[in-house]
Amino acid sequence: MALINAKSQAARATAMPGALHHLKATPETVHWGYFSPDIKPVLHVKSGDLIHGEAITHHAGDDPELMFDENIKRIFTEIDPTTRAPGCHIMTGPIYIEDAEPGDMLEVRYFEMKPRHNYGSNLQANWGHLYKEFDETERVTIYKLDPNAMTASALYAYDVEGVYTTPGRITHCPTCDRSEALPGITIPARPHLGTAGVAPAVNEPVSTIPPGLHGGNIDNWRIGAGAKMYYPVQVKGGLFSIGDPHVSQGDGEISGTAIESSLDVLFQIILRKDFAFPSPLLETPDYWIVHGFGEDLDAAMKGASLDMMHLLTEHQGLSRHDSYSLMSVASDFGVTQVVDGTQGIHCRIERRIFPEKGTFTDPE
Amino acid sequence: MALINAKSQAARATAMPGALHHLKATPETVHWGYFSPDIKPVLHVKSGDLIHGEAITHHAGDDPELMFDENIKRIFTEIDPTTRAPGCHIMTGPIYIEDAEPGDMLEVRYFEMKPRHNYGSNLQANWGHLYKEFDETERVTIYKLDPNAMTASALYAYDVEGVYTTPGRITHCPTCDRSEALPGITIPARPHLGTAGVAPAVNEPVSTIPPGLHGGNIDNWRIGAGAKMYYPVQVKGGLFSIGDPHVSQGDGEISGTAIESSLDVLFQIILRKDFAFPSPLLETPDYWIVHGFGEDLDAAMKGASLDMMHLLTEHQGLSRHDSYSLMSVASDFGVTQVVDGTQGIHCRIERRIFPEKGTFTDPE
Repeated sequence: MALINAKSQAARATAMPGALHHLKATPETVHWGYFSPDIKPVLHVKSGDLIHGEAITHHAGDDPELMFDENIKRIFTEIDPTTRAPGCHIMTGPIYIEDAEPGDMLEVRYFEMKPRHNYGSNLQANWGHLYKEFDETERVTIYKLDPNAMTASALYAYDVEGVYTTPGRITHCPTCDRSEALPGITIPARPHLGTAGVAPAVNEPVSTIPPGLHGGNIDNWRIGAGAKMYYPVQVKGGLFSIGDPHVSQGDGEISGTAIESSLDVLFQIILRKDFAFPSPLLETPDYWIVHGFGEDLDAAMKGASLDMMHLLTEHQGLSRHDSYSLMSVASDFGVTQVVDGTQGIHCRIERRIFPEKGTFTDPE
Repeated sequence: MALINAKSQAARATAMPGALHHLKATPETVHWGYFSPDIKPVLHVKSGDLIHGEAITHHAGDDPELMFDENIKRIFTEIDPTTRAPGCHIMTGPIYIEDAEPGDMLEVRYFEMKPRHNYGSNLQANWGHLYKEFDETERVTIYKLDPNAMTASALYAYDVEGVYTTPGRITHCPTCDRSEALPGITIPARPHLGTAGVAPAVNEPVSTIPPGLHGGNIDNWRIGAGAKMYYPVQVKGGLFSIGDPHVSQGDGEISGTAIESSLDVLFQIILRKDFAFPSPLLETPDYWIVHGFGEDLDAAMKGASLDMMHLLTEHQGLSRHDSYSLMSVASDFGVTQVVDGTQGIHCRIERRIFPEKGTFTDPE
């Protein structure tokens, strides 16, 4: 793979905003629980087009009075629960990108992530990291967002009977015992997409739960407004979908969920045929971040190490030894999540430490 | 354990700076490779005293022309190499703290960490995370520090014959083939102590390599100037030592070492009998950070989870369920290191999210 040093006219033209599309989330435009190359696209776009899309949380049923509206209610009631499988996330899409072919990269520029309602739900789930330490009980905490301060605070909490199995469970607590939760504590809001990605090249529905090379349920809270993600295209047309919106999450996501809350997302898709990367790559204003996945944190750590090595050698032109030294003294590894089956470690390095050589992955 | 809500007069008095002690590193004032309750203290202090101490890197032999001076040369030549065991770090101390008893906490306020020479060494070591991917070769990269900009850049690199076994190896490369390294790249300096801690309550020398409840080789680059560490006292007098100075390291420390470079450290030791914590606790201006350790990252993750739970329940008065929810949405887990035998995961939470209730762990 070549170094990305040149600002070509073609690349500049590619990144110009094209048409603007609106993609509402309805029972007709979402797929629930799976990625698949066989889903009929709900939108066709050209490289450079902008999309204003709706991402719907599958936890809206934790307080439907606060997190349902007409279209969300339709999604929860009209989609057969037995078809919400093998994963759990409501995905809006897929979007077919003209000329996208396997081996290309989709550059997705996330411009805005606006909460649809100012409420969200955190579930202490049966797949949470400390579930056994809590006598195997599930509990919901409802948070209220302050969209002006961009902070969140807990509104109330309640215990849930039984365990979460069918996606889209409705467990609201209008008359039950609501408990006060986290009095006086206010946390920063970090709106982002927990799950977004292209269709994997697999001839059967693939669960939305484990993240992978197609992206999917990466659960990195840095995938928010101002960030760019680069997804390796797996099938013709790319077939990109968004879902699993969060307004806050910590690295680790240890209770099993974030503050799950529907978001309206403005983003641009740019088809990149001029570079490649083996796994989903994140670019924020300050960092490049690679994602390693594995059946445990040790395997994910190895994956993230090798992919950061790849970034430094293939895209910054460093020797392998130089890359290794630099990673040890200037890159930071973090736990992305430990609750999605496949576990995640990400590795970030500051962009400002590199000498100017074009703009790496930016065609403009 | 009680909540730390009160600013008692006694605690205020305890934190007033007392005497100032100078602790030079010489063959007589260091112990190399081990912690032990049986080492004769080289300094006696009272709670509140300031210490200006020297921390010496055991990697100074990677370029003695740049990183040796008279006292460092004495340490490297006068201390019998066969006694540098079972670990590898040169530890200055121990310091006996009057009245310190097992169950107390040592609050160590790190005020200044000043590079002794403006050079450091990064070794791609045989215990590095990607050693096998590099055909099992070791390589040294010498970095130069800019003390004005507080940045570092590589000066040159060379391959090392054989593998690092005896601590204090001298492998300098005055006439060998020096290679250019990392041209044009400048990284932030993060001066900190890789290893510092109290003597473990074990009746034999304990290796300095694995971190543990006594502190030791935690390798968290946030243990720098402006930070406070709280170490659980294990034996009478505490017996605190410092060593393993770094001028930069990334979370993970994947090549096996940081930029290893001697530091002069100004710090204050305050004896705390008014609170307890089960593991080494770090307080920076913005964060509280707990440290989990384990034989792999998964075990370390569990440890960090439980200790953050402990901090939130015992010291912020939150319920266990509230703590769990808060951790999932607002605390970030990171990989401290994967190269010290015992692996480390830390978990940080922002201090500003909590309502004022005294100043948690600060007696002033």
